[in-house]
Amino acid sequence: MLEPVLQKQIIEKNRNFMKGYRQDDPYQEDFVSDQQQRLPQPPLVKAAIRPESEWISLPLDFSKLAMKNDLYALIHDRKSERIYTDQPISLAQLSFLLWAVQGVKELRGKSYATLRTVPSGGARHPFETYLAVRQVEGLQPGIYHYLPMAHALELIGTETELDEKIGDSLSGQKWAGKASVVFYWTMVAYRAEWRYGIYAHRVALIDAGHLGQNLYLAASGIGLGCCGIAAFDHEICCRMLQVDGVEEYPVYTMPVGTVSEANKEAEQEFYRFVKEQNL
Amino acid sequence: MLEPVLQKQIIEKNRNFMKGYRQDDPYQEDFVSDQQQRLPQPPLVKAAIRPESEWISLPLDFSKLAMKNDLYALIHDRKSERIYTDQPISLAQLSFLLWAVQGVKELRGKSYATLRTVPSGGARHPFETYLAVRQVEGLQPGIYHYLPMAHALELIGTETELDEKIGDSLSGQKWAGKASVVFYWTMVAYRAEWRYGIYAHRVALIDAGHLGQNLYLAASGIGLGCCGIAAFDHEICCRMLQVDGVEEYPVYTMPVGTVSEANKEAEQEFYRFVKEQNL
Repeated sequence: MLEPVLQKQIIEKNRNFMKGYRQDDPYQEDFVSDQQQRLPQPPLVKAAIRPESEWISLPLDFSKLAMKNDLYALIHDRKSERIYTDQPISLAQLSFLLWAVQGVKELRGKSYATLRTVPSGGARHPFETYLAVRQVEGLQPGIYHYLPMAHALELIGTETELDEKIGDSLSGQKWAGKASVVFYWTMVAYRAEWRYGIYAHRVALIDAGHLGQNLYLAASGIGLGCCGIAAFDHEICCRMLQVDGVEEYPVYTMPVGTVSEANKEAEQEFYRFVKEQNL
Repeated sequence: MLEPVLQKQIIEKNRNFMKGYRQDDPYQEDFVSDQQQRLPQPPLVKAAIRPESEWISLPLDFSKLAMKNDLYALIHDRKSERIYTDQPISLAQLSFLLWAVQGVKELRGKSYATLRTVPSGGARHPFETYLAVRQVEGLQPGIYHYLPMAHALELIGTETELDEKIGDSLSGQKWAGKASVVFYWTMVAYRAEWRYGIYAHRVALIDAGHLGQNLYLAASGIGLGCCGIAAFDHEICCRMLQVDGVEEYPVYTMPVGTVSEANKEAEQEFYRFVKEQNL
């Protein structure tokens, strides 16, 4: 067990991290951002590692997707689902999900900001999206990097035994190994720090929730299931996504899979302890 | 300006706060949660301060609200809007927004967890929702507390000069003073710490984003405008919401108002610097 005094200190620091501008913040008055100092702005997106000829274009015609076009039902029916029927999803479905979480709608200025399908503090959009693709029609299994400017994918890793590696990357949550695809979002920290410096990180975590909720609604809205996972393994994810873990590091993950009403009861097994402990 | 070495240290700590489970985390192995120790679970929601006879029931019949029932358009059309036309919204509209961000769908166990319209790590739902009501039909202006179990409101403060106070509470963002209603979410920290201890706070910030995105989509979906604000004033918000700032503290805010296409260009004034600096 953690030493209680230490635990209390950590909790106090963490609570303070979550708070807005405080009078007892010793730094606010002196803080000058790199943007205010007119230091060069970092790129809006991470560069592809593969040449454009190898990018996989994603369809932007979603007219053939069956969508739940009902705002009330979209919000009401969304839930976390962990039992997947291990079927492939279509490239159009995947394309819609990627668009819904990070799609670029327009540029502000020549290259000042991207406006996307989700809000982000100061329109910094400090995230990159990676996929562990198991079962997507037209894609070989492997690790992909999403290129939001082109709405395309590039293959960056041809992993084998992906079921197991996904489970490991998500701190042993093996059920995720039956997802059709797992989303991993990384933070490219300086992209937000350039504008917000030491105040960038709290806002970015909230922004990660914005895109997570869009994936929940978009997936549910096209009949797929998903479950947000903040409890992932930092080192394993970094290796899988080939990021350094310092300038760019994973912040949120979400498996998406095919689901069936028939598994509704099995899903309740995750909460058996509630019954057992009479909570 | 902040001393560069200090700034670098703070940034490194903040980045680490955002990360998943790390091998160099000195605490993970020893950590035992209060839940694992079978300590009593805290209440699922904050108690009302007013007797039930004074609660204001919110309508749950949304059938008369004009909704954008189109998943693609809902996601595509959402944007941050800061210029409000200062009109009242209906109680049904407000009720729909409250339901969309924190509505309770069912209980898990007798009193183990609430399942809501948004996901939350471990279904802890550590948030309370407060409103600064300026212009909502049927409600006197003031500060309200949302009671999710009853889907009702209680009046907790009869502020005057709300326009100005809203701007002050949002660190001088005066435009928000023309919102019909401003949402303030607080974190009741132990509600999440009981299960996640020192690991509760990162997850809770992501959860704040989940509910923020639902408010964006729900507001946009019924024709209203809003804009998430993480840059609020901790002390002023605490006083306004009558929370202690330690066990319960504000984490995210969002003004919601009536909007008009006619203000589209004026909205661009917020980004004039992009043009001026040729960015």
